[in-house]
Amino acid sequence: MIIDVHGHYTTAPRALEDWRNRQIAGIKDPSAMPKASELRIGDDELRDSIEKNQLRFMRERGSDLTIFSPRASFMAHHIGDFQVSSTWAAICNELCHRVGLLFPDHFIGAAMLPQSPGVNPKSCIPELEKCVLEYGFVAINLNPDPSGGHWKEPPLTDRHWYPIYEKMVEHDIPAMIHVSTSCNPCFHTTGAHYLNADTTAFMQCVTGDLFKDFPTLRFVIPHGGGAVPYHWGRFRGLAQELKKPLLQDHLLGNIFFDTCVYHQPGIDLLARVIPIDNILFASEMIGAVRGIDPTTGHHYDDTKRYIEAAAVDPEARRKIYEGNARRVYPRLDRALRAKGR
Amino acid sequence: MIIDVHGHYTTAPRALEDWRNRQIAGIKDPSAMPKASELRIGDDELRDSIEKNQLRFMRERGSDLTIFSPRASFMAHHIGDFQVSSTWAAICNELCHRVGLLFPDHFIGAAMLPQSPGVNPKSCIPELEKCVLEYGFVAINLNPDPSGGHWKEPPLTDRHWYPIYEKMVEHDIPAMIHVSTSCNPCFHTTGAHYLNADTTAFMQCVTGDLFKDFPTLRFVIPHGGGAVPYHWGRFRGLAQELKKPLLQDHLLGNIFFDTCVYHQPGIDLLARVIPIDNILFASEMIGAVRGIDPTTGHHYDDTKRYIEAAAVDPEARRKIYEGNARRVYPRLDRALRAKGR
Repeated sequence: MIIDVHGHYTTAPRALEDWRNRQIAGIKDPSAMPKASELRIGDDELRDSIEKNQLRFMRERGSDLTIFSPRASFMAHHIGDFQVSSTWAAICNELCHRVGLLFPDHFIGAAMLPQSPGVNPKSCIPELEKCVLEYGFVAINLNPDPSGGHWKEPPLTDRHWYPIYEKMVEHDIPAMIHVSTSCNPCFHTTGAHYLNADTTAFMQCVTGDLFKDFPTLRFVIPHGGGAVPYHWGRFRGLAQELKKPLLQDHLLGNIFFDTCVYHQPGIDLLARVIPIDNILFASEMIGAVRGIDPTTGHHYDDTKRYIEAAAVDPEARRKIYEGNARRVYPRLDRALRAKGR
Repeated sequence: MIIDVHGHYTTAPRALEDWRNRQIAGIKDPSAMPKASELRIGDDELRDSIEKNQLRFMRERGSDLTIFSPRASFMAHHIGDFQVSSTWAAICNELCHRVGLLFPDHFIGAAMLPQSPGVNPKSCIPELEKCVLEYGFVAINLNPDPSGGHWKEPPLTDRHWYPIYEKMVEHDIPAMIHVSTSCNPCFHTTGAHYLNADTTAFMQCVTGDLFKDFPTLRFVIPHGGGAVPYHWGRFRGLAQELKKPLLQDHLLGNIFFDTCVYHQPGIDLLARVIPIDNILFASEMIGAVRGIDPTTGHHYDDTKRYIEAAAVDPEARRKIYEGNARRVYPRLDRALRAKGR
């Protein structure tokens, strides 16, 4: 089985975006604030938006199951207050849940959280628990910078975040560390902010000792770990200067990298540098980079092709495609086993 | 000849740091503000600080000439106002100039600028011109984020920066795009902020059309280009989505990457992905990562070893070591030719 751990609902029906725009307008003009119940999207629309897009590509490219979360750039935690984020997160998570119900063999949910700048993350726990306990979601996306490119929250190693980590450990779910839209004009969202956040999150963990407090906590760093594998020697050397254990011992029991790296040399480096047990197959398809690479004739985000061509043995490839995901997302493994998969 | 385009005076005599600490104290208590003339460092001290450190490593490792600028993390443009930065930059640049006079075959200067958050960059021009015209410096370091991790200036493609670019073009000098210390607790200075800035600067250039306005402007992106070469497919794809020309045509006449990547697989990727003409040898030795890599027994920042072991032909290696630097830094080439080198 091939599990893609990084999919977002980037193709949701237009009504979702229209509702969100009304919600944003309602922040300034409360009389214009729509109710959640005013958003109506039928199952046929959902089915259509998936069958023609993600599911079509999954079939063409040959992946089986996607861990599916709300569109990352639309989380936009910097917009409005906690109430705005809370309503928006509930709507987006419910849509992903409905996609999972419509295509139970192909999609399983990961939750966005109703984060809001300056608000205690424990405010996110009810939504987190609803998604895990009622919807059967297997992970969360945690935004280390809900300010959207201004980086005003403390580092991920700060006790500020511990209420979330306690729930992650309790429910045995990992977090993908994933920012959202940048509202800082310095940072292009998908070309700078996403990669910077990946690098930043990893380095925060190098500096701290978070996994001493939470030995079973697990983070997935997306986009191939930002700059980290390319600069693995730098990070090994920095850990050494900071008198930390070897990265292998310090972090690699808890931190994993996905394969959202959109060319062969990048995936080759990832597989050469990072232990196979720490690499999870992912594409983030129909995401930041939707075009066809003129040098290959295939979609940039068809990452399975790169894994197929990488110099790894079949057992390693099986781990990247399936085994590691089952280990890092135990609730996914349980859901699959319950169906005999 | 082997030219290292990225060296900082990280080993300056302790008196420099003491003076800076007094200057910082003087921001709050003007009666404590030291005069520049109170800093006294003799030639013997300078000679000693270089011979035992940079020059020793250059001899051991086999590089000939270093483009030498003030210590990057000490620029700290976020501290104080323009007057503070101006005095500090003048002191630091003069020390690098004196190193160049003491070791004319081995060091040639690149200037730090007296940038200050929110201050028009044209305030930096007198220092820039002094360094180029009086000291014979061959480049500048330009900090895209003088706020130190808060990213409050406009992107590098904004007209805000044009006064600097006009002088760069006039004097035919490149800029290394190099941030300084992060005062944002989210960003470790050398493990996150530096790499993020490299990625950010590159993506700003992808998004804009700066080199249409300045066809001969040249940027060196340090630290192997941050995350860029590892994600080259992503950047090619993003440029395509933005309807920009191929990166080769859009940026690679103007943007160059150094080799400050501290392990073999990283350098291998760089040389595989980025055209050889755009790669400049550099080590940033005695910088962020000073230790010995236990997997090789050699210093992480001994980057010449990785270039030697990379799968590039001798002509390509000669370009990386010398030819490209002479082309990107024409004032360096002229200074060398004047000495028959």
